[in-house]
Amino acid sequence: MTARLVLDVGGTKMAAAVVAEDHSIVDRAVLRTPVAADAETLYDAAVFVLHAALAVAAVPVDALGVGCGGPMRWPSGEVSPLNIPGWRDFPLRDRLAEEFGLPTRLSNDAVCLTVGEYVLGNSRSVGNCMGMLVSTGVGAGLIIDGRLVMGASGNAGHIGHVVVEPDGPECRCGGRGCLEAVARGPALVQWAVAQGWRPPADGEADAVRLAESARAGDAVATAAFRRCGEAVGTALAGAVALLDLRTVALGGGVSRAADLLMPAVYDAFERHAGLEFVRRCRVVLASPDAGLVGAAALFDDPWWPAVTDLLEQRSTGADHGVRTPLL
Amino acid sequence: MTARLVLDVGGTKMAAAVVAEDHSIVDRAVLRTPVAADAETLYDAAVFVLHAALAVAAVPVDALGVGCGGPMRWPSGEVSPLNIPGWRDFPLRDRLAEEFGLPTRLSNDAVCLTVGEYVLGNSRSVGNCMGMLVSTGVGAGLIIDGRLVMGASGNAGHIGHVVVEPDGPECRCGGRGCLEAVARGPALVQWAVAQGWRPPADGEADAVRLAESARAGDAVATAAFRRCGEAVGTALAGAVALLDLRTVALGGGVSRAADLLMPAVYDAFERHAGLEFVRRCRVVLASPDAGLVGAAALFDDPWWPAVTDLLEQRSTGADHGVRTPLL
Repeated sequence: MTARLVLDVGGTKMAAAVVAEDHSIVDRAVLRTPVAADAETLYDAAVFVLHAALAVAAVPVDALGVGCGGPMRWPSGEVSPLNIPGWRDFPLRDRLAEEFGLPTRLSNDAVCLTVGEYVLGNSRSVGNCMGMLVSTGVGAGLIIDGRLVMGASGNAGHIGHVVVEPDGPECRCGGRGCLEAVARGPALVQWAVAQGWRPPADGEADAVRLAESARAGDAVATAAFRRCGEAVGTALAGAVALLDLRTVALGGGVSRAADLLMPAVYDAFERHAGLEFVRRCRVVLASPDAGLVGAAALFDDPWWPAVTDLLEQRSTGADHGVRTPLL
Repeated sequence: MTARLVLDVGGTKMAAAVVAEDHSIVDRAVLRTPVAADAETLYDAAVFVLHAALAVAAVPVDALGVGCGGPMRWPSGEVSPLNIPGWRDFPLRDRLAEEFGLPTRLSNDAVCLTVGEYVLGNSRSVGNCMGMLVSTGVGAGLIIDGRLVMGASGNAGHIGHVVVEPDGPECRCGGRGCLEAVARGPALVQWAVAQGWRPPADGEADAVRLAESARAGDAVATAAFRRCGEAVGTALAGAVALLDLRTVALGGGVSRAADLLMPAVYDAFERHAGLEFVRRCRVVLASPDAGLVGAAALFDDPWWPAVTDLLEQRSTGADHGVRTPLL
């Protein structure tokens, strides 16, 4: 193989890179996601950042791997990221494949993170591991018994919609008390503002400013990160009990405030993880580039599960559209 | 194949059966689990009920399949069921293999339920499904992308230790607010008694009496089942978001009070399941014999994952014993 072009679409930024065969980043470009824009403006931004990465790297590429926030149709790659309202069933994979004339694969951004961690990170070669993004959204990817998990519709890994506070805040998904509604970056900021926190003079009220305030000793800002970490640790304890995982790697913008976040993650995990096999799980930070590396690895054999098999599974279950209680 | 002998060890009863090739039950025997007894008394009860089933069925059997509450060492089959304190690292598989001179396989009871549902129940041939027991304990088994999931130590499926009330009751696992601590049969009864419920004259305070009271209109008893159902539905919404499941089948003693339980399960699921792929999941009751049928099917090819592969995965991760934060 030669190098691969990759795109990571998040609710805060779009990152593109050229990734070499040895998983190193040849070069990269980053752009703030025009999150309130319409579908075509968003698409133009994605194309722009990809061209920028290609131009600076100046090496040939043979494929395009894309990670994007969920949910989505998979493997066809029509995306509807909760974080990006302008895209609903947007055919991102097809559009990019045509635009760049490259074989193009698209998966969940947290799935890419997970594959990257398996390839080069703390979860290297660990057959039961999870990669988790705590950022504008909260999501995960799962490798179980040595295989990347896709789920019935290609949407496995939505840990952001595990309930951590049954009577908690409404979530953009339509549910209530979801981890994402408590722990995503904007939720931290919103909570802190409601408790009276204000960003330093003329600054924007965002998670970066909130972290600065917490490090400067602000009690509300500190509590906001603690609340986020507690929710993450609680959800993790449950996910590890359900799935018997060996490692969990945390990535994404909010997790970069590890000094503020991780003590609370560990406290909650410790408090809720009782069974020995759960307590043995190792919770660590993801490598910063794991998502990009994983998007490039979508073309390597084990990371694109036999799609035809999955589609067969799916069609088998296609008549299960309505929940019919057997009462 | 000829028929197979099976054993289902729960915290309330031990059930043995002979299962024919067509998944029908040839005959069966049931015994109350001497739950407070020592290891050998418990073992004697298991052997007794197996001999009873063999005697009444009077057909030859070629294998012994066992489902038991978790956690356990797998595939070696030393069991430590939370519900049965007398067994800790008890070598149930080896002892039964020697006793009956049959090839013997042991897995989690909820895993057996799941396999049974896949073989003959509402989850038949559904490649992404969960079987869940709500009984003296609460557990699950998982089939994901067409494969039975075991996890890093063979303990995948412990949905009973997903947190549903972060500040909830202490759990026997050592954690807090676990689904099992809220929703297992004895927890319902304990909660109801604390709220002033008393069993009808001279009756024992158990889940069967509690269901009778609820059906007779007792408000506390009704609320106890509602609380259980809400916890189950909440945990299910999260598990389905995490795993993108198509069907969930509920079994176990408490779920048999479906008239009292399921409306609350559906209400909570409905409230917490926002994403479309989650809302599409079908939550139904398991077939009463799914656990026994699944234990017999442990000898059929897809239901005993390539153990050597899993063991290799496990040894790869063997140095991950301590959680080391990367701060």
